Amino acid sequence: MTELSERAGVPIPTIRYYIREGLLPPGNLTSPNQATYGEAHVHRLTLIRAMVEVGEMPIAAVARLFQHLEDKNADEYTTLGLTQYSLVRTAARESTLDEPGAAEVQELVDRLGWRVNDHHPARAMLASAVRTLRRLGQEDVLDLLERYAASAHDLAEAEVGVVLERDGLDNRAEAVVTVGVLGDAMLAALRRLAAEDVMTRALETAARDANG
Amino acid sequence: MTELSERAGVPIPTIRYYIREGLLPPGNLTSPNQATYGEAHVHRLTLIRAMVEVGEMPIAAVARLFQHLEDKNADEYTTLGLTQYSLVRTAARESTLDEPGAAEVQELVDRLGWRVNDHHPARAMLASAVRTLRRLGQEDVLDLLERYAASAHDLAEAEVGVVLERDGLDNRAEAVVTVGVLGDAMLAALRRLAAEDVMTRALETAARDANG
Repeated sequence: MTELSERAGVPIPTIRYYIREGLLPPGNLTSPNQATYGEAHVHRLTLIRAMVEVGEMPIAAVARLFQHLEDKNADEYTTLGLTQYSLVRTAARESTLDEPGAAEVQELVDRLGWRVNDHHPARAMLASAVRTLRRLGQEDVLDLLERYAASAHDLAEAEVGVVLERDGLDNRAEAVVTVGVLGDAMLAALRRLAAEDVMTRALETAARDANG
Repeated sequence: MTELSERAGVPIPTIRYYIREGLLPPGNLTSPNQATYGEAHVHRLTLIRAMVEVGEMPIAAVARLFQHLEDKNADEYTTLGLTQYSLVRTAARESTLDEPGAAEVQELVDRLGWRVNDHHPARAMLASAVRTLRRLGQEDVLDLLERYAASAHDLAEAEVGVVLERDGLDNRAEAVVTVGVLGDAMLAALRRLAAEDVMTRALETAARDANG
């Protein structure tokens, strides 16, 4: 346990908590007070930390995700779908199709011809963002929605490609998780870095024009 | 205060807390126990809730953001830049350029020719995601990095366009906030919806091929 804690950089009480909550399988008992943990435990812990720290997912959502993976009665498509649903931030998960913004999302999905389940929790997440932008009167930002959708679909083609290239449900589900959680983080970071680049150039051009 | 709470959908104690922390200006006192709040208060509260609930920003980060906006000595470029920096999730903000992953980020930035400050906190955010993916052995997901960067830059062109189309520093800074926070949420939601569409089609094609 001490070695596992050091290798994964996760405190022992946290590891115990994850085991208790069913996120991490217990080690192999070698004596009543001693258990061994292998490479798979370090890997699983790193994955959990990515979901909890980078994805800011609640422990319950992570537990739910692993439960879907262990349900051997579901077909692969359902399991990968439910894995993906688990990654949607909780705040938006309780919302319903009737909420303001939902019709706008449906209209967008129809216009784009996307085939998306009525109960996909990302609908509510998107509806909530649209609603807030409308309440703030940010029509100019809302006008970017179709561009976001086009980029999202382009990226999804590549991302689903990565998922389906892998062998075995567990490896595929793990790709769904990392593409989702770490993909969000990478994209958010890259958008901010790119914005600085674009802004720097735009203001330089404006200054040159003003002086020229 | 009661009316403000109802219109913005934010409980009174929360509003008092925001006023105490300097996120929201106090109302205009009309008597020792009575203050009036206008449209600007409702708007500001909606913006704060977007940062706190959708962006999951800590109150201290929101306070810092408004402080930058009120610093009338800084030039516009600096203020918009600092506004953007405030939007980077805290977990990554303490990291430094020497951390593993940072060299890889620098290499990517160089290869793309982006002009980005050495201290942009999104570098650490990206480095952290790259590090985690490497630790998990997800080279196939890391191979998507250049595609994410290309999409991020395309979107940044459009987003900075929206920011600079606006009049006045406050409106521009607000666009930086909404494009950042609500843009992240919209993109994350759209990527998940698009993934379902792509996955559905891919598995259908695979089933059709299998059935001959």
